[in-house]
Amino acid sequence: MRIDGVQRRSLETHGETVVVLDQTQLPHHVVWRTLSNLGDACLAIRDMWVRGAPLIGVTAAYGVALAMRADASDAGLASACAALQATRPTAVNLAWALNQMKETLGGVPPTARASTAWTKASTMAEHDIDVNTALGQVGLGVLQALSNAKGGRLNVLTHCNAGWLATIDRGTATAAIYAARDAGIDLHVWVDETRPRNQGASLTAWELGQEGIPCTLIVDNAGGLLMQQGHVDVVIVGTDRTTRTGDVCNKIGTYLKALAAHDNDVPFYVAAPLSSIDFALSDARDIVIEERDAGEVTKMQGLLASGDVGSVQIAPKGVRVANPGFDITPARLVTGLFTERGLVRPFEVASLEVR
Amino acid sequence: MRIDGVQRRSLETHGETVVVLDQTQLPHHVVWRTLSNLGDACLAIRDMWVRGAPLIGVTAAYGVALAMRADASDAGLASACAALQATRPTAVNLAWALNQMKETLGGVPPTARASTAWTKASTMAEHDIDVNTALGQVGLGVLQALSNAKGGRLNVLTHCNAGWLATIDRGTATAAIYAARDAGIDLHVWVDETRPRNQGASLTAWELGQEGIPCTLIVDNAGGLLMQQGHVDVVIVGTDRTTRTGDVCNKIGTYLKALAAHDNDVPFYVAAPLSSIDFALSDARDIVIEERDAGEVTKMQGLLASGDVGSVQIAPKGVRVANPGFDITPARLVTGLFTERGLVRPFEVASLEVR
Repeated sequence: MRIDGVQRRSLETHGETVVVLDQTQLPHHVVWRTLSNLGDACLAIRDMWVRGAPLIGVTAAYGVALAMRADASDAGLASACAALQATRPTAVNLAWALNQMKETLGGVPPTARASTAWTKASTMAEHDIDVNTALGQVGLGVLQALSNAKGGRLNVLTHCNAGWLATIDRGTATAAIYAARDAGIDLHVWVDETRPRNQGASLTAWELGQEGIPCTLIVDNAGGLLMQQGHVDVVIVGTDRTTRTGDVCNKIGTYLKALAAHDNDVPFYVAAPLSSIDFALSDARDIVIEERDAGEVTKMQGLLASGDVGSVQIAPKGVRVANPGFDITPARLVTGLFTERGLVRPFEVASLEVR
Repeated sequence: MRIDGVQRRSLETHGETVVVLDQTQLPHHVVWRTLSNLGDACLAIRDMWVRGAPLIGVTAAYGVALAMRADASDAGLASACAALQATRPTAVNLAWALNQMKETLGGVPPTARASTAWTKASTMAEHDIDVNTALGQVGLGVLQALSNAKGGRLNVLTHCNAGWLATIDRGTATAAIYAARDAGIDLHVWVDETRPRNQGASLTAWELGQEGIPCTLIVDNAGGLLMQQGHVDVVIVGTDRTTRTGDVCNKIGTYLKALAAHDNDVPFYVAAPLSSIDFALSDARDIVIEERDAGEVTKMQGLLASGDVGSVQIAPKGVRVANPGFDITPARLVTGLFTERGLVRPFEVASLEVR
């Protein structure tokens, strides 16, 4: 990933500290924050300086490593993991990363835990990049074929931010876009604003801009018309959780774009690392959809005239709000999934299970 | 319509002046503005104190009447109409209302023009209410049948504001909702925020709240999930222009909701006064979709901490934006249309033409 022309990562280690980009200040200010101890790591996750499942997981892993320097006892390990887990109780990847750390450190003497934890966190970060690079190569094959068939600039539509800002580097859905750019494919990206948290407007549009990839910001309502008019050649999104039957749980609004893609014969792809596939789940209706805070809908954060980041109230005072975070795109609307094991059709997802 | 418990209209005449609700201040402040001359009427339309095709048309008609008091000559009439037309050049209903006024006043001596214009504008206002009342009765029949079939609270989803704020009273899509409420049907309305201008959040949610109708504000991305979960019994929207083949041009994002309704067997109705049907148009692809200002996407208006209405920047500086205002819902996704001539199936629209 490139920021102001310099190669960076969303999370970096500088000596014995961890440095992360404060995403709450984007796209208005580029602010790097240094995490020196467990408290800093908890704050980074709780206040959403970092977000996106892979990035949260790795930040938590480093948080354990930082905690081990202060107290590497069994009690210290347990309380560090509990504190980190409490920052975002519903984040599946956070729990997964903490369990990895507990397993790894459980059998290691306290004196070796700080360095073991640091190495393990670093391995997780590198693994994230390897996975994303693999997804990108799979996506590149698809985009190359579409580009060859079209013979002109390829228009990609994406929803939310499944970019490097959600991972350590390259991103999941964006990995294909960056791989295509690197391969010389001429492309342009339609970026869904992605209400209510506006990750498209504030993160994806900024990230693609930093990479020099031509992109156009649109409201979530606009994608259907653009597909009707033939201005979208392919949709690529991420996923929070995919069932063994190929149903895709992703950011609210994804389903509407999948319907429009299907109605207009636009291929619809999902970048799905194996870690996001829940092989225990056959029926997407069993997924409990997170209901989020009403303030995300009634208020809007942005840059005030003063230059500070603040918010305005955009709804009537006291209005009732529903704010579900995710929806389900049924397998029948999914053309294919980019995975570390290659391009997979939704009905083939179950076959990826390692028993 | 009710505001703070008092029966009002979006546009009222007080003696020799016209009083309109300044909708740019909603839902935060209720501000009535008095229009005393042509300049005031132009400002009201240009600065969008009034919006919605019917309300713009009637405001323009009263604008001509106000102008006739100052200068009722042929030149005065022509320049008043030109000034009003220039306020919103693409508003079809504005042009239609001004043509009505020109035709009516052309054959009337200048001395009688002010009073004739006032009477004509008043007739247009009453006609708007009559039409909406008729649409409401048609919609009531549909909602009554759905309510009887369900036997519990009926959940209606609507997009944008096709409410009394867009008309003189009752609204088009909301007329059915108010008629159902008056008939004792238990209902609840899901209100799409409707980016980029947020007419759902700032106008419809406020309007329904004033009427005491239970409603819940949602982002535009959420409707698909709610339909998947069985929480939507019927969709009712307005229309800016409907073709003779039953294709519906309406606020951007309508098409996505129609797709989701179709995918989940939710009936999808359009409140379509005959004035909104373009019998000359057979192919919706011939409709030129208005491209609106990028600032609607990159900035968000709302209530600042100071209590003033202001805006925040929500996108990266200099980002490229596309902002199409409308999309097309194909007739195949439309269950029926509420018209003054009754409930009409989309393939029957052409038969409504009066030759």
